[in-house]
This record gives sequence, C-alpha cells and structure tokens, in this order.
Amino acid sequence: MRNDLKRAIFKNQSMNYSVLFDKIVRKRSFLCVGLDSEIEKIPASLLKEKDPVLEFNKKIVDATHKYTVAYKPNVAFYECNGAKGWETLDATVNYIRRNYPDIFIIADAKRGDIGNTSKMYAKAFLGNMPFDAVTVAPYMGEDSVTPFLTYDDKWVVLLALTSNKGADDFQYHDEDGIKLFERVLTVSQKWGNINNMIYVVGATRAEMLKDIRKLVPDHFLLVPGVGAQGGNLQEVAKYGMNSKCGLLVNSSRGIIFADSSADFAKVAGQKAREIQMEMEQYLSERNLV
Amino acid sequence: MRNDLKRAIFKNQSMNYSVLFDKIVRKRSFLCVGLDSEIEKIPASLLKEKDPVLEFNKKIVDATHKYTVAYKPNVAFYECNGAKGWETLDATVNYIRRNYPDIFIIADAKRGDIGNTSKMYAKAFLGNMPFDAVTVAPYMGEDSVTPFLTYDDKWVVLLALTSNKGADDFQYHDEDGIKLFERVLTVSQKWGNINNMIYVVGATRAEMLKDIRKLVPDHFLLVPGVGAQGGNLQEVAKYGMNSKCGLLVNSSRGIIFADSSADFAKVAGQKAREIQMEMEQYLSERNLV
Repeated sequence: MRNDLKRAIFKNQSMNYSVLFDKIVRKRSFLCVGLDSEIEKIPASLLKEKDPVLEFNKKIVDATHKYTVAYKPNVAFYECNGAKGWETLDATVNYIRRNYPDIFIIADAKRGDIGNTSKMYAKAFLGNMPFDAVTVAPYMGEDSVTPFLTYDDKWVVLLALTSNKGADDFQYHDEDGIKLFERVLTVSQKWGNINNMIYVVGATRAEMLKDIRKLVPDHFLLVPGVGAQGGNLQEVAKYGMNSKCGLLVNSSRGIIFADSSADFAKVAGQKAREIQMEMEQYLSERNLV
Repeated sequence: MRNDLKRAIFKNQSMNYSVLFDKIVRKRSFLCVGLDSEIEKIPASLLKEKDPVLEFNKKIVDATHKYTVAYKPNVAFYECNGAKGWETLDATVNYIRRNYPDIFIIADAKRGDIGNTSKMYAKAFLGNMPFDAVTVAPYMGEDSVTPFLTYDDKWVVLLALTSNKGADDFQYHDEDGIKLFERVLTVSQKWGNINNMIYVVGATRAEMLKDIRKLVPDHFLLVPGVGAQGGNLQEVAKYGMNSKCGLLVNSSRGIIFADSSADFAKVAGQKAREIQMEMEQYLSERNLV
C-alpha cells in the first residue's frame, strides 16, 4: 500500500476515537447524562413555560456540562409528546450543540429496520439533527445497522448487553459457548470499527466487563445502569477501562431528577460533579489524566 | 373458577382474534398495505400540496381500502421529516380511522427499550394515536415488550424472523437446536396471547412457515416481503394459513409506487385488487369465505 494512502486511512481511522478520548481527558470525566426528561417528573415550577421540557433540559445542561462529556436524550420521552416532542428534541440537541460544541450527543433511539428504512432513521438523527451518535438494536443484522455508518464522523452505539431484567430472555442464548450478545460484539466488528462504533454493555454485573474486554479490547462502551449513588462505578472502571478510557458511563434519573424543587438544576450539577470527581480519581489511577 | 369470571375471561380473550378474522372474511382479503411513503418517490404532481405525503397517503388509502384489511405506515419514512413528519403520520392514521373505521392500523416502529421507556413508546403509538398495533423488537426481552400489552384491544407485532439479508446474522443463532427466532416465538407466548400478539415472519423461504406453524399454530403472522408481483403469496398461503386465516401479508412499494403518473392511485387500487383476488381464492380453497 502506498504510504500516503496508508497515512490517509490511518488518519481517518484514528480520528474519532482520539477526539472522544480528548474530550474525556479535558473534562476529567467519562460521564454521560441521560436526558430522560419525562414531563410528569419535571419540577412544577417549569410547567408554566411554553415548552417545559426544553426549559428543563437547558437548565440541566447549563448546570452539568462542566462535568459531562456526553448527553443522551432517550427519544421515547420526546416521542410520547408527538410532533411537539420532536420539536423539543430538536431544540434540545441544537441548544447543546450551539452552546457547548464540544459535547458528544447520543440519540438513544434503539432503531433498526431493513436497509432502505434504517437509512431513513439515520437521516432523521444523524442527517437532520446534529447528533453525534444513535443507539441501534442489532436483531435484524448487518443491513439494519450499516446505513447508520455512512455518515462521516458519526457513530453507531449498538446494543449488546442491556441492563434490564429482560436481557436474560435472549441475550444469553448460547451457541457452542458463544452467547448472543457476544456474537453481536464479534460479528458487528466487521461492519464498523473503533472510530464509528460503541457498544451498550449493561453494568448490572460489572465483573462481566472483564470477559467483554477480551472481545472488544479497544472499543468505547456505553454503560447504563449506574446510578447517582455510585455503587458499581468503581467496578465498572476497574473491569471496563482501557488505555484510552474506553468508557462512557450513563446516569439519568439519579442526576436530572435528584431534586424537584426550584433548586433542581443546582442539585443536578452537584450530583454530576460528585460523579465526575469519582471518575477523575479512576482516570488518575490509570495515569490517563 | 366461577363461571361468570370464566365467561368474562373467555369473552375478552376471544375478542380481538375473532374481530381480526371477521375483517378478513368481510374483505375477502388478508392484505396489509405498507405506507412507506418516501417523499422522494411520490408523484411530482403532489409536491405542490401543503403536505404532499399526507395527500399521497389519502389518495392511496381511498383507492385501496376496499381490498385491504390493514395499513402499516413505517414510522421511519415520517420521522426522517422531523416534527412535520410526525404530524403527517398522526394525520394519516386519523384519516384512516375516521373514514374507514374498520381498518386495522399498524405502526411499523420496531421500538423496544427498558420497561419505563417502552411505556413511553406505547403511549406514543397506542395512547396518543389511534393505532391498533405497533411492531416491537425483541432483543431486550420481556420488560421491553409487555408495556405495549397494557392497552385494551391493542396488539404487539413482535419481530421474530425478518425478511432481510441481515436476518442471518443473529436470528438463526442456535442453542441446542432452538434458533433465536424460534426462542422468540416460544418465550414470548408467556407475555401475550393470540388476542394481543402477532409475529413478523419473513417470507423469503415460505416453506419455513410449516415449521413455524408448529410453534405458533394459532397466532396471526404478519408476513412482509411479498411483492405486487405475487411470487410466493401462494406458498405463504399454503404453509402459513390456519383455520382463522392467521395471516396478514404486507405489500408496500409494489402497490403504492406501482405508478408515478397522475394515475398513481388508480394503479395502486388495481394492484391491491389483483392481490385481493388471489387472496380470495386461497381463502375460498380453505372454505374460509
């Protein structure tokens, strides 16, 4: 291979991964805040606003962005308000992009359909809205996922092992010692690479991350299910962190709904700060910051 | 069990299934028309309208409803137009419900998330909009599916075996002779019943329906991938039909984009009529009409 071509490919392949790691180093945090902004749960003081959920999101983002590398609105909490909810989602992601351009923004949509249809979902989140990434469900296989990988500098976050009880129903289905979620982790590495694919790996049993790291040593993992209470964050870092951190750990309700008074944003900021400080410690122990 | 309670349960459990079968008998058709109304593909003559996709859908529905038991808008083709697309989707389903109240309407959304989040998706499609059913992806298991089953007289259409190439990647993953899609068909029968659960079963190899019918003898199956050209419709009927028909066969592009001139709706009606006549023959051969 020609050297200039090699350099070009290498440059392209190393770009996104390094950019994400740089964000983590700068913020001394690998926190992702889930904007699961259910209208029934937002403080009553906001309900007089024209778009209460948008106001809530703005205040949460303003209070937490210093401690956060990523935001992850779960689309269901917007979609349940119909077209108006979609406007709120669009306004939220644009607000973050405009005011905090460095932040990584994930549409937690768990989409996936046949090729020409997934292409439309990709357009919805990665083409029309300034998301950096979208979560995708793997059940329908390669042609349901690859349309999301055609956007430069954008990512797929593929479900592998989820943190809910129902994960037991199918994700552990075992063919010759290979569980379904392990097959997802292995097979999908042919579709994308460490620069455009992240895996959702639930943290209910953090020690499993040790085995998962054997299959995906270098990829970033998005780890849900870690509450504001900390709990297993230490274990997630212990078993899941690699030489470029390789982790985004999500907390939703534990931060955004930590308080329902007029001080909700301040308390959310404090919660995010607490988690960031704990994360900084783990990054420091690995000499990554 | 008290007899009145038994009767009440029986009445409830037999209702939806029979209602769906009645629709099929009345229409002499088990056709579902997929409203995958991609704006780039709709006739140029409609682009001057305020909402071209809505006008297209209305004309397609007006021309095909006589031959059709169900419509299935694929949400991706609306979502890719953002909030405006959601308004079109909402207006489309309300137009069908208002003008043709007998028609069964499926939101092809392929959603699925942890319990409290799936609840929001269920609200979006079954609570806020008058859909009868929504397609759901099974990867995240029971608690991702059951929130959709809490609405009276509404259905989940669960992905089991899809018709795309990527179906090979995971759906055939085989534990002790049980493939993943077979496990989906078996395990999910504990979550719902024949009155609130339909399965997506791809028709690329229609003879597989014979074995699938051993696992789900009574459930309705939604079969995609049968084109306007007919092709394997005969085989789908041969291997998949049960004593209450038990089939909804979908055709999208083969009907709605059969013609791109000003006559598009008339041609779509003709295509739907052709398929209906073929379906009537198969229903007649089984003495169901």
